[in-house]
Amino acid sequence: MSRWRLDIAYDGTDFSGWARQPDRRTVQGVLEHRLGQVLRLPETPALTCAGRTDAGVHARGQVAHVDLPADAPVDTLPRRLRRVLPPDVVVTRVVPAPAGFDARFSAQWRRYVYRLADEACVPDPLLRGHIAPVRGVLDLDALGAAGAELVGLRDFAAFCKPREGATTIRNLLECISTRRTAFPGAGTVEVTVRADAFCHSMVRSLIGALVAVGTGRRDLAWLREVRDSPVRHPSVTVMPAAGLTLEEVGYPPDDALTDRAAAARRVRTLPGGDCDGGCDDG
Amino acid sequence: MSRWRLDIAYDGTDFSGWARQPDRRTVQGVLEHRLGQVLRLPETPALTCAGRTDAGVHARGQVAHVDLPADAPVDTLPRRLRRVLPPDVVVTRVVPAPAGFDARFSAQWRRYVYRLADEACVPDPLLRGHIAPVRGVLDLDALGAAGAELVGLRDFAAFCKPREGATTIRNLLECISTRRTAFPGAGTVEVTVRADAFCHSMVRSLIGALVAVGTGRRDLAWLREVRDSPVRHPSVTVMPAAGLTLEEVGYPPDDALTDRAAAARRVRTLPGGDCDGGCDDG
Repeated sequence: MSRWRLDIAYDGTDFSGWARQPDRRTVQGVLEHRLGQVLRLPETPALTCAGRTDAGVHARGQVAHVDLPADAPVDTLPRRLRRVLPPDVVVTRVVPAPAGFDARFSAQWRRYVYRLADEACVPDPLLRGHIAPVRGVLDLDALGAAGAELVGLRDFAAFCKPREGATTIRNLLECISTRRTAFPGAGTVEVTVRADAFCHSMVRSLIGALVAVGTGRRDLAWLREVRDSPVRHPSVTVMPAAGLTLEEVGYPPDDALTDRAAAARRVRTLPGGDCDGGCDDG
Repeated sequence: MSRWRLDIAYDGTDFSGWARQPDRRTVQGVLEHRLGQVLRLPETPALTCAGRTDAGVHARGQVAHVDLPADAPVDTLPRRLRRVLPPDVVVTRVVPAPAGFDARFSAQWRRYVYRLADEACVPDPLLRGHIAPVRGVLDLDALGAAGAELVGLRDFAAFCKPREGATTIRNLLECISTRRTAFPGAGTVEVTVRADAFCHSMVRSLIGALVAVGTGRRDLAWLREVRDSPVRHPSVTVMPAAGLTLEEVGYPPDDALTDRAAAARRVRTLPGGDCDGGCDDG
């Protein structure tokens, strides 16, 4: 068998998320089925991804790996997949995975962008599928101050759906809000969050808290109280999936892939914590 | 009555074009209905637009005018319309029309962009609703040379659906192709065409001819032959509507609006030429 890295983009609107589920249209399910078909494999291959996005969440920079028989005809795979895949999912690149590469556990960070159209922005109907509308006007200084309160290595339990035995400690590396000035989507507020990994619903809860502060409905004292809560905080709104896009996954240099994967497994794969460690789902 | 200018954006995918038709979902039909409702007018108001886009064509910069009773409550109209309009059409601005303003006849030019994803570009599924896929790789130099052959005041009969009594003479002011470098949609080829007006299916036929040259299937000699044909040319492909967006309509300074409208009516409103003059439909 040899391992391949796939770079994947999708419009999450009509998918029940990444993870394969019986009788649901999922990104993983569609891709695995079509990979098996195009490569004429006797069994459906299994994909492992960097970010198990939730229903309705989009991706431009999803990464997955797959182990294929060494003689599988992988040349021209992106083009052949393009012919059979539905238009809402695209395999943008297929390359041999470097030694030690694991799409999930080798990843150093995931970068998501949440896009918001507030009342100061002229909404663009051509982009509405991946920008969430928001009431009121977002103050970028307030969003910046709120983001600064959240970054760092912390227990993000307040923002996570609890999962028995799984840690909610994450390292939020970046939380930056900008108002887009370039065409298209000028005026859209883009909140970039980057972390080693995210637990379930964490990005959308973080954005919900930021929006509460950015629109002036809540203040930083409230945000700090929420942030320090040891359990999921009831006053945090989980934002709609449609505004969220997994933009990029970061990996270390090739010679550090194996060590990174071992460390991620060791530190965060706890009993019952199936969706932890390298996994995340926005 | 007082006249208002409306700036309008829409995703054309689920509309049977701009122009009102019985039993069809059209941009004009939806807007006029909702305007009448929000303003509680006894009769449905009539909109006149700058570019009567075809089924499936999008707009970010459509302009229309409407005459309303002087006491109609127009304040906060965009916001109130946003509450009742479907998400695929947005009235981005409502302002009092300057004296002499006619959305159709005062317009000096219409600017459309046709967006193409060729095989050199990584397709973005989030933008697929307004970018048309194309086989092969587009050569930007060839597209540029082809565009230069087309600009100018000419009879564009070769590219137009014939309409009895209507002239097909237009002034193509600009025909420029670029490969987008910025996010999102980096790699997309954007063909900008700007003219005083367009006749029916003209933009999509021009793009079909450009793509034939840009992919190397045809040469400039063929393009010149087509261009100089006095009737619709059978070898020109009409490109799909989904790639086309009306981006902007240009008007002269306020003190020249009346003269411009009179000139446009005089020069191009010929018998039977209902869709001529200031009108265009991509």
